[in-house]
Order: sequence, then C-alpha cells, then structure tokens
Amino acid sequence: MSETANEANPEQSLEEAARAQSLMPLWSIYHNIMSTEPKPACSAAHWRYNEIKPLLTRTAREVDPSEAERRVLLLHNPGLKTPFATHTLGCGLQILLGGEIEGKHRHTPSALRLVIEGDGGYTTTDGERMWMKPGDVITTPSWTWHDHGKVTDGEMIWLDGIDVPLINHLHLNFTEYGLQDQRQELTVADEDSHYRYGSGLAPLSGVPVRPFSPIYYYPYSRTREILGALAREGEWDTCHALKMRLTNPLTGGNFMPTIAGFMQLLPSGFSSAPVRSTDAAIYSVVEGTGKVSIGDECFSFNQHDVFVTPNWTDIRFDCEQETVLFSYSDRAMQENLSLWRERRGDV
Amino acid sequence: MSETANEANPEQSLEEAARAQSLMPLWSIYHNIMSTEPKPACSAAHWRYNEIKPLLTRTAREVDPSEAERRVLLLHNPGLKTPFATHTLGCGLQILLGGEIEGKHRHTPSALRLVIEGDGGYTTTDGERMWMKPGDVITTPSWTWHDHGKVTDGEMIWLDGIDVPLINHLHLNFTEYGLQDQRQELTVADEDSHYRYGSGLAPLSGVPVRPFSPIYYYPYSRTREILGALAREGEWDTCHALKMRLTNPLTGGNFMPTIAGFMQLLPSGFSSAPVRSTDAAIYSVVEGTGKVSIGDECFSFNQHDVFVTPNWTDIRFDCEQETVLFSYSDRAMQENLSLWRERRGDV
Amino acid sequence: MSETANEANPEQSLEEAARAQSLMPLWSIYHNIMSTEPKPACSAAHWRYNEIKPLLTRTAREVDPSEAERRVLLLHNPGLKTPFATHTLGCGLQILLGGEIEGKHRHTPSALRLVIEGDGGYTTTDGERMWMKPGDVITTPSWTWHDHGKVTDGEMIWLDGIDVPLINHLHLNFTEYGLQDQRQELTVADEDSHYRYGSGLAPLSGVPVRPFSPIYYYPYSRTREILGALAREGEWDTCHALKMRLTNPLTGGNFMPTIAGFMQLLPSGFSSAPVRSTDAAIYSVVEGTGKVSIGDECFSFNQHDVFVTPNWTDIRFDCEQETVLFSYSDRAMQENLSLWRERRGDV
Amino acid sequence: MSETANEANPEQSLEEAARAQSLMPLWSIYHNIMSTEPKPACSAAHWRYNEIKPLLTRTAREVDPSEAERRVLLLHNPGLKTPFATHTLGCGLQILLGGEIEGKHRHTPSALRLVIEGDGGYTTTDGERMWMKPGDVITTPSWTWHDHGKVTDGEMIWLDGIDVPLINHLHLNFTEYGLQDQRQELTVADEDSHYRYGSGLAPLSGVPVRPFSPIYYYPYSRTREILGALAREGEWDTCHALKMRLTNPLTGGNFMPTIAGFMQLLPSGFSSAPVRSTDAAIYSVVEGTGKVSIGDECFSFNQHDVFVTPNWTDIRFDCEQETVLFSYSDRAMQENLSLWRERRGDV
Ligand SMILES: [Fe+2]
Ligand SMILES: [Fe+2]
Ligand SMILES: [Fe+2]
Ligand SMILES: [Fe+2]
Ligand SMILES: [Fe+2]
Ligand SMILES: [Fe+2]
Ligand SMILES: [Fe+2]
Ligand SMILES: [Fe+2]
Repeated sequence: MSETANEANPEQSLEEAARAQSLMPLWSIYHNIMSTEPKPACSAAHWRYNEIKPLLTRTAREVDPSEAERRVLLLHNPGLKTPFATHTLGCGLQILLGGEIEGKHRHTPSALRLVIEGDGGYTTTDGERMWMKPGDVITTPSWTWHDHGKVTDGEMIWLDGIDVPLINHLHLNFTEYGLQDQRQELTVADEDSHYRYGSGLAPLSGVPVRPFSPIYYYPYSRTREILGALAREGEWDTCHALKMRLTNPLTGGNFMPTIAGFMQLLPSGFSSAPVRSTDAAIYSVVEGTGKVSIGDECFSFNQHDVFVTPNWTDIRFDCEQETVLFSYSDRAMQENLSLWRERRGDV
Repeated sequence: MSETANEANPEQSLEEAARAQSLMPLWSIYHNIMSTEPKPACSAAHWRYNEIKPLLTRTAREVDPSEAERRVLLLHNPGLKTPFATHTLGCGLQILLGGEIEGKHRHTPSALRLVIEGDGGYTTTDGERMWMKPGDVITTPSWTWHDHGKVTDGEMIWLDGIDVPLINHLHLNFTEYGLQDQRQELTVADEDSHYRYGSGLAPLSGVPVRPFSPIYYYPYSRTREILGALAREGEWDTCHALKMRLTNPLTGGNFMPTIAGFMQLLPSGFSSAPVRSTDAAIYSVVEGTGKVSIGDECFSFNQHDVFVTPNWTDIRFDCEQETVLFSYSDRAMQENLSLWRERRGDV
Repeated sequence: MSETANEANPEQSLEEAARAQSLMPLWSIYHNIMSTEPKPACSAAHWRYNEIKPLLTRTAREVDPSEAERRVLLLHNPGLKTPFATHTLGCGLQILLGGEIEGKHRHTPSALRLVIEGDGGYTTTDGERMWMKPGDVITTPSWTWHDHGKVTDGEMIWLDGIDVPLINHLHLNFTEYGLQDQRQELTVADEDSHYRYGSGLAPLSGVPVRPFSPIYYYPYSRTREILGALAREGEWDTCHALKMRLTNPLTGGNFMPTIAGFMQLLPSGFSSAPVRSTDAAIYSVVEGTGKVSIGDECFSFNQHDVFVTPNWTDIRFDCEQETVLFSYSDRAMQENLSLWRERRGDV
Repeated sequence: MSETANEANPEQSLEEAARAQSLMPLWSIYHNIMSTEPKPACSAAHWRYNEIKPLLTRTAREVDPSEAERRVLLLHNPGLKTPFATHTLGCGLQILLGGEIEGKHRHTPSALRLVIEGDGGYTTTDGERMWMKPGDVITTPSWTWHDHGKVTDGEMIWLDGIDVPLINHLHLNFTEYGLQDQRQELTVADEDSHYRYGSGLAPLSGVPVRPFSPIYYYPYSRTREILGALAREGEWDTCHALKMRLTNPLTGGNFMPTIAGFMQLLPSGFSSAPVRSTDAAIYSVVEGTGKVSIGDECFSFNQHDVFVTPNWTDIRFDCEQETVLFSYSDRAMQENLSLWRERRGDV
C-alpha cells in the first residue's frame, strides 16, 4: 500500500514493516481470533411485564400519534452496547391505541410479532390482513410490505422481534416507505394464507417462489390446540418438554430464513435437564409461571415476561404450572449456514 | 442370439434376417410407437352409489368375515381388460361390519381411503390410529404397516384408492403380512400426525426422512373449513374453481410420490371451461350434485357417486349446487418424472 | 353402469351381479394382483456385436437414406411381445453413413446414445453440437430438440437407449417434428455444456431450470480418466467393483428423470458377489471381455456386445481382463418414486 | 430489571425511566438503525505482490518453523479495526518452506487456499491429500480436519481465505487440534474427490451428506481449460465478462455455505459496465494485468496482486491483456439467507 514499501527500513522489525503495508502478522494474534468454543455474546436478562406495562402506557400518552409507528420500547440487553436483545436480534414492546395506524413500508430485516394484549388490532403483510389476538404469531418476512392499525378503542400491545442487528452487521439493510400513513391494498381475504397453506393443503398453482413461509399467521387458537393434543401423549423431551418449530409448509424449513420461532409447552412440575445451543434466544411467557436458570443466574417468570438466554450457556426450566413459552432466535440463520450446534446435559 | 446367425441365408429378407436374431427394424414400426399426442388409456365411466350400495350390503352378508379384508368391489373401467379404474390406479369400495378387522400388512403399492359412510371405524398406519369420519382422507403410503377395524355396530363404507396397476406394470410389487388378524401396536396417540405436522408446526427433531407426507390423516372437518374460507373469497379458476392439493408439509410436494389427491369446491351454478391433462383421475362426490362432461360423454352425479376422467380428454363441470369433489390421480408420479402436462380450454 | 342394475336378478350370484355393474370382487383376484416379491418382467438376453454388425451394414445398403433416421435395429427381448429390450426401455443400434442426417425433432421420451464405432458424426441437442467418439454418452432429454448427422465418409454406429415402452404405457408420448431434414440452429459452441457445467463450475446466472442434467455430453476421454484414477485406489465393491452414475451437477441426481446411466470398471480377474435390484438394465461392453451370470443363464461377452439383465434377478460378473461396461436402466424413475430396491448377496 | 422500577420517580423523563429498566425508546434511534440502503463496510484496498513477497521471505526467515502454521501475513483492510480483509472475511498470505508442516486441526470457520507460487506443497482435507499447483483452489470446509506440508525445497506461497470475522461476530467459533505436528491419515488416493465427484459422475452409494461440496480440489489446469473453451464462444457479460462459480455438484449450490468462490476471465481490451452487489469481495490476480475502479478509487493490478471491493460499491474493470481473476466473498452466506442483491449499471 505504501509508496515506499520497497525501501523498507532494515531496522524496522518485521511486525512494524508488515503494519506499514497494511499487513498483520497472524502469529501474534492467532489466539485472539480462534477459540476452543464460543463465549456468550450477551447477558442473561429478564424484563417483568408488570414493570414494562406502566411505561408503555406512559409512552402511548407522551409520544405523538404521528410517531405511533416508532412507539416501541426496545429491550436493551445489559451485556450489549447496542440497544438489542441479543447480538443478532432485537426485541421491542409496541403499544398502539384505537384509530392509530403504522403506514406501509418494507425492509430487508425480517420481523415477527407476538400479540400480548388487546383487541381490534391488525397487521397486514403482503396484502393480507390478520387480526391480532393474544398468543398469535404474525410474520413480516424480508422485503414484504406491511402496515398495522387498531380499529377499536383501548391499548394493544405486542412484542416485535426483528433481526436488525444481524442485518446491520452484515451491511444488508435496505428500507422502503409508502406514502405517509398509507395502508396496503388488501389483495386477499383476511388470514388467507393460514387457510391456503396452513393445514396440509396447497393450491394447484400460483404458489409464489419465496424464501419464507407462505403462511404469515400462526393463530394461537390452533397452536394451543396442537400443543394440547400432543401434550396428552405425555412424552417429554428431558431438555425441551414439548417444543415445536413454526415452519414453512412448502419446504419443511423454518418460517423465515434468518429467524426461527418456537412454541413450547412445559407441563406442571416439569424440571428440565440443562441444554445449551449456539443460538441466543428471546422468550416470551404466553401462559404460566416458572423459573429459568441461565448459566449462574435464575429468574422467576410470570405471564408476558420476557427473558433472554445467551448463546452457548446452559439453561434449565422448573415450572409450577403448565407453561407455554414462545421463543425466537437466529437458529434459522445458523441452520442455513450449517453451523447450529446443541449440547444436551442429559447424555 | 441364434447359433447360426453368422451363416445367414442370403435369400432371407433383411427383416427376416433381423427377426432371426431378435432384432426388429425400427423403420417398419416407428409410427406405431411414437405419437403426436397420447390417446386416452381408458374410458370415461360413472358408478352410481345407489346402485353400488345394495351390492356392498350383499357382499357384507355373503363374504365370510374372515375374508373381510378383501371384501372390496373394484370399479372395473369398461375400457380396460384389468379390473382397475384407470391404467395406473385402482379404486374399490370396501365394507366393514362391527367387530371386524383387517390384519396388519404392508405393500409397495401406495393407498388412500376416502370415508363414505358409517362410524366407529379406524385405520392404523405406522402405529397411528385414525378414526374414520365421512370425507376424511387417510393414507397408507408405500411400505407402511396398516390395519383397519370397526368397533361399533353397523356398516362402514370407504373408497380405497391404490396404485397397484402402476406398480405391477413396473414389476415392483412387494407385500408382507403380519400374523393372522394382527393389529399394530399403537406407538403414538390417535391422529398424532395431524397435530404434529398438520398446521404449520413441526417437531424440533425426530422427523423421519420418508418419501411421503408425515401426515396420514386429512380430516374433512378441517378440509371443509379451509374450502369454505377460501370459497368466500369468490375467486374461481375457470377450469378448476377452487382445487387444493393434499401436500407433504415437509417438502410442499404431493402427499405420496405416486398418487396425488385433491379436494375441490365448485360453487353453485359454476360452469367450467374445458381442461385436459395427462393424468387420468378418479372422482368421488363428497357433497352436492352436478354434471360432468368427459370428452363426448356426460354424466349426472349425486353424492358418493364415482366417476373416472381418462387422460388427455377434455372435462367440464356444471354444478347446480355447491359441490365438493375428492379426486386422485397419478399426477404425483408424472410430476416426479417431469412429464405432467395440462391443456386449458380457456386460453 | 347398467341401466337395469337396480332390478338385479335375485338369482344372480354376487359375482355376476357385480360384473353386471362393472364391479370386480377383489376377494376372487387378490392373489393375482399382489405378490410377495416381483417376478422378472423380461428375459436375460445377449446380442453379439459380430452378429449384429453385418446386419447393420446391410441395413445401411438396403434402407433408403431418406429413412436414415429410422435405420435402427431394435433389440427385441425374447421375453417380451413388444420390440423392446426391457419392459420399460428400448435399445437400438443405429447406422449413419457420410452425408446423411436425421432432421430435428423432439419427443417426451428421453433418450441417450452410446457411441460404438466411426467418426465425423454429431448429435445436436438443444442447440449444442457434440462430436461423437467411441464410448461417449450423449443425451437428448425429454422434449429437447435433437438432430444427428455425419460429415465424413464411412459408417458410424451408435447405441440408442430410450424409455418409449415406459412412456407409452403411461400414455405420455408427445412428438413434434421440424421441417424435413432440418438441422437445428447452433446456439452455443460445440460441447458447451461439458465445459460450462461438467467440472465443478457453473455460470453465475442464466442456468436453465430443467428437470435433467444441463450436461448433454459425457465424453469417454474424461470418463475413462476418472475410472482409471479411482481404479488405482484398488477398492472394489464386492458386487459392483467400481460403478459410477452419470449425474446432474445441479442436483446430484441422475442425468435424466426416467433413465439412469452408469459407467463401471471391473478389474482383471474380478469375480463379483451376486446382486439383484428392481431395475432391469441394458449393458454395452465398452472395453474388455468376460462372463455374466444372470439368474440361471451365463453369457460370455466381447467388446460392443449388448446384454440385458432382468429386474429382481441375481447377476454376477467374472472378468478375464479389465472391463468397462456402460449400462442404463429405469432406476432413475424408480428412485424418483422411492421404489428402487437392491438385495446384495454379500451380506 | 431494577428492583425499584415500580417506584419510578415521577419527575424522571420517559426516556430516563425507560433506560433505568434496560429499555431503549425506538423513536429516538430509529434512523440510526434503519437505512435506505447499506453503506460500504470497509475500504477499497490493493496489495502489490512485489511488495508483499519480500516480507513473506523475511517472515520465513525470522519466524520459527515451529510456528510455521501461523506464518501468515493478514491483509488488514485500512477501513476496519480488526485485521481482516472485509467485515466478514479474512485474507492471508502464507509461506511454507521445504520440510515444514502445519499439523492437523479443524475449526468451524471455513477456509480456502489459492496457490500462488512454488511446488511440492500439499493440503490434506478430510483424509485426502492434494498437491498444490499455482492457480489451484483447495477447500477446508467447516469442521473438516486439515493439515499442510511441503516435501521439496524452496518457498511455497499461497493465499488463505477464511470467514473468521463472520463466524466470530456470530460467536460460532469452535476449534480442535490434533497432537503436535500430527498429519492426518490418508484415507483415499490423492485428489480423489476431484475424480469421484468433479466431472459429471458420482458414486452409487457412500456419498456423505455434508453441507459443502464433496470436491475439495479445483485444479487450475481444468479450470483454465474450461475458461478457455467458453472464452472462445466470445459472449461476454457486460459487467462480469466470463465469471464462473465453484460449485457443489451434489446440489448445484456454492462450494461452501458461507463463502462463494469465482474464477473469471476478462478478455484483452475488455472494459466492463459498473456493477455493485451486497457482498464485499477479495480478488487475486491469477493471470494478466489491468485496472479496477472501485467507487472513486482506481488500482492498476499485476499478477498475484490482491484487491478488495467493498459491498454496495460500483466496480469496473479495464484489461489490457487476457486476465484471469480468482475472487471470493460471503455471497454464499447471503444467498443462503436470501439477502444477496446486485445492481447492474448496464440496464
Ligand atoms: Fe411495525
Ligand atoms: Fe417494519
Ligand atoms: Fe385395506
Ligand atoms: Fe393394504
Ligand atoms: Fe435419433
Ligand atoms: Fe429422437
Ligand atoms: Fe492453514
Ligand atoms: Fe485451519
């Protein structure tokens, strides 16, 4: 790089000479860049819903409706400098009031919503409107247009999951906005994809070739019925009890290429064996209460609480009552790169 | 082949000389073996359920319960020498009485059942018992163990679809029997696969690698709900109205590799544009009445009737009332070989 | 079906009554249509090249050049009524003289050519001309335009493999012809696909989505080099010695969806363990001599001889010298339907 | 999080109250985390081989042979704090002397080698030894054992490409070492995979299910023959001239799941249209000389020089003579996540 590189000063050490040419000796840093196994990238963390809720209500009051679309409190992992839940995923709690909308837009980050409380709210993804009920999971995959709104009075609160930290680190963030406060045109009936693709059937033709699930809507009524039916079989994985993946029924893969989503039922009295995996995850408590041990820390959780389990850290559950957990992580990304690993403590 | 081939008689014609060596001149038969387009392999045909039913009842009376497993009337296409519905697929109507069972067995032919009438019957496939209700579709894919039974009094009638003619022509028929009247051990809860794989979720691990859908049970209660929801959108394909494929949610493909299954809703007053495809199909009327034109023939059909549409023959529907048709064909096989074609009359 | 079905004669037997309505009792024929395992569909057979060659030469003399495209002697398996090599595949030996051409056409049957003798001949598939040298394998997959010609004097002989019996049984034969004696326009350089896709590289874009290998040309110079290199490792499968599949490098699957092709090297002195599989195969001897046992029969083969091994019949090889066999079968079709099986005699 | 969160000070601003609970208001940072399009993550950079070579020679002299395995000079992109070539990929130049070895080890980062100069060196990957000749590309995919050595006198120099920055950012780095200076046992013949999988053939069975190409060796002799053959067709992409991907012949995908590799020929006198893509790339000049414009910068390159093109930055080439470039990038990762984009300046 340097114009004078060839005339290197013979008194320069090799390392100085290298650095002068934008070269770095590997032997001096090898052990900094390779590791026997990964370290956790962030901290274990726990947010109590009864502490967050008052702030959300205050947010709805103080932040102008014209900014409703950004009226989100991001869960900022204490182990990270950036305001995200893990090193690859963000998690926010959003509040929308009656009559408010969030105008249509799209971005390369993929997102999901888990509905916490309220009624009369909808998300429209790619021309399909979905009415949000507690426990529902709704996706807005990469580069799909989406907008939200609420047609009834009162507060609606949901959890937003998004892969912004991952996408930004990779320098892949593209965003496009519609006109101010613009809703999408509805091109199919409400919850169309849930019926069209969601139960073992599919259309003869016109199936779009997309890298994500054609289903944008995983209603809790159906998810809970499935968890209940399988729970009656009484076969529990020692680490995960009953844990199901949200899938793309056209491929059997995860519902989005970067984010995996899970619905998990832990029976009353369940005490799990420890397990760690290479993905850090964000959990939201849909039903029940219990305790989670994450490495050396332990949290008691109640409904709607959120907690984060860092990568490559043992986790364990103890549930007093039947508990349903939604979680999401970058396991989809890791599986697509063939890098995901799990180490079970029961073997 | 012939020991004296080298001493061919010079007075022999070329053709005689060739035949003497098990050789056949192509130029003399070329136009017999190549064609601009295929001819129908079988006839259009229609069986009225009100004519078949009395025979089934008589069958139940006259055929010994020890032969219950074969107490099937095969629909013999008048255009075929072999007793099958099309050149590649068989169709039978089977009757089972209270207390009867069909012992466990398996075969390389793939099969499906469409339930017509009755209650208290079950099919067990691969350790999973499914309770048969009218309109349900249940599969027994290639080489899966299966058995049937009926625990309540009265008659149970179902339609059996099977690819025996295809498999036999290809000389691929393997069959294995359990002990006399042996039921399978149940290894999962009833209808497990419907819950485990049937609605956008899938287990984290333990998913078997199989060439067919992990779902063995497509209950009509769910299918009808889906057809109803999509029908309310009121968008009708001019040839097919609303026609859905039974799928493998791990791949998006057909539920079995040789047989495709379809559930189709035609709205009241629907009159379709003609369409032909390279697969011959067997239709069973789940709900409704109407007329089908198949080439030059026309049949009026009622509930539970069966009709066959030959390959590469135009078909058209006229429905007086909302009609639901189940159909199956070898389109799955043709798609797996990249040979399926359709010619629509609306373009 | 019968108009009088409802007035069934009470004195009719059940079977008569059923037949009168185009119904066939399964219990009377069950054992005719199901089998514990398949029977061979055709006979073992052997054609000596030194017996066929004189007939081919006579064919070239007696059959008009305007019919050159059909100047093929089909190997008619003595166990079949139709003039084919197996129940699903045809095999012909074709002779072309200098200056002759076979005009462009296409058909749904898939075909391959193995070059036997001569020079200056070409096949053009999909705009790509390939110069035929002994041992080369050239494909004309389903519905690809193709034409042949010979620009030098003398005879050119090749083996034609085609899936006409399979396609015709399935009633899927479509054929289209160009104008009389029309050659295709060449759209790429000669043997383009061999370079573009044939060695671990592929273009960045413009890769056609096709159900068959983008490579139409598997030159023997390369195949032989590969067989030689792997043979030097001296690891021999007890049944197959060293047997390689011709593949589609975009999927890892077989080069065509209905026909699989194989190149196999048996070392000098090799005596194989018996093996049977569900596919009947046609073998052509590219190099060497040996003996093949097929069920109860045994043939001694020389270079360019052809023999057929029926399905589900044990075969064994004994080779005096290093031998290279090309073979093809419908194993690709059977694998695409997940029905192919092998039973090895060495376990 | 805070024990006193519920007793929030009413005088605290909303933002202060949120931060006290590890919550971050999105509305205050939204425009910092979303962008209309990505910015370059690193700088354009160019390293001249004639400047690097003397340092490598000095390195061989001054760094102890026992550290030979780390005797690498990493190209440190001036736009990055970490000593890597791009934000996701590292690039080093390694020198090995006669008799030296680098003992066996494996790691989750994937790596490749492009051979620059010298003879008698080998890389062994997964039991297969490959003799390194200039222009050869050799892979050591994620978690495959590998070791290197040199059996002749003199210097051997190669370029190491590795995805350490990506893997480390994702906290997925696992590494395992063999005993000191341990070579792998050779389990197949040298360059086995090149023959076994590299040319349109594949074994009948025993094909390992791996997420990367079974070919570890892309010899330049073959690559150059292919580039030459396709170059004679004279069809040049206006942006890329003739650019080929190193593939996995079992899937048609990239040779490794995180790194894509390319071999590209630019004809004499070629002047390309600008093009940008979301992947930053590292180029090594295998043959020829020319100029590359990268955004506002322009570099004149000679054989063996290395240059880096940042993501989402227009690049253009002007070549005086026929030039062959090897390049690699994280495009494979981006394609596996369905996030790769290109914007061509010629449309
Ligand atoms: Fe939003
Ligand atoms: Fe958004
Ligand atoms: Fe049965
Ligand atoms: Fe059966
Ligand atoms: Fe031909
Ligand atoms: Fe042809
Ligand atoms: Fe290395
Ligand atoms: Fe390494």
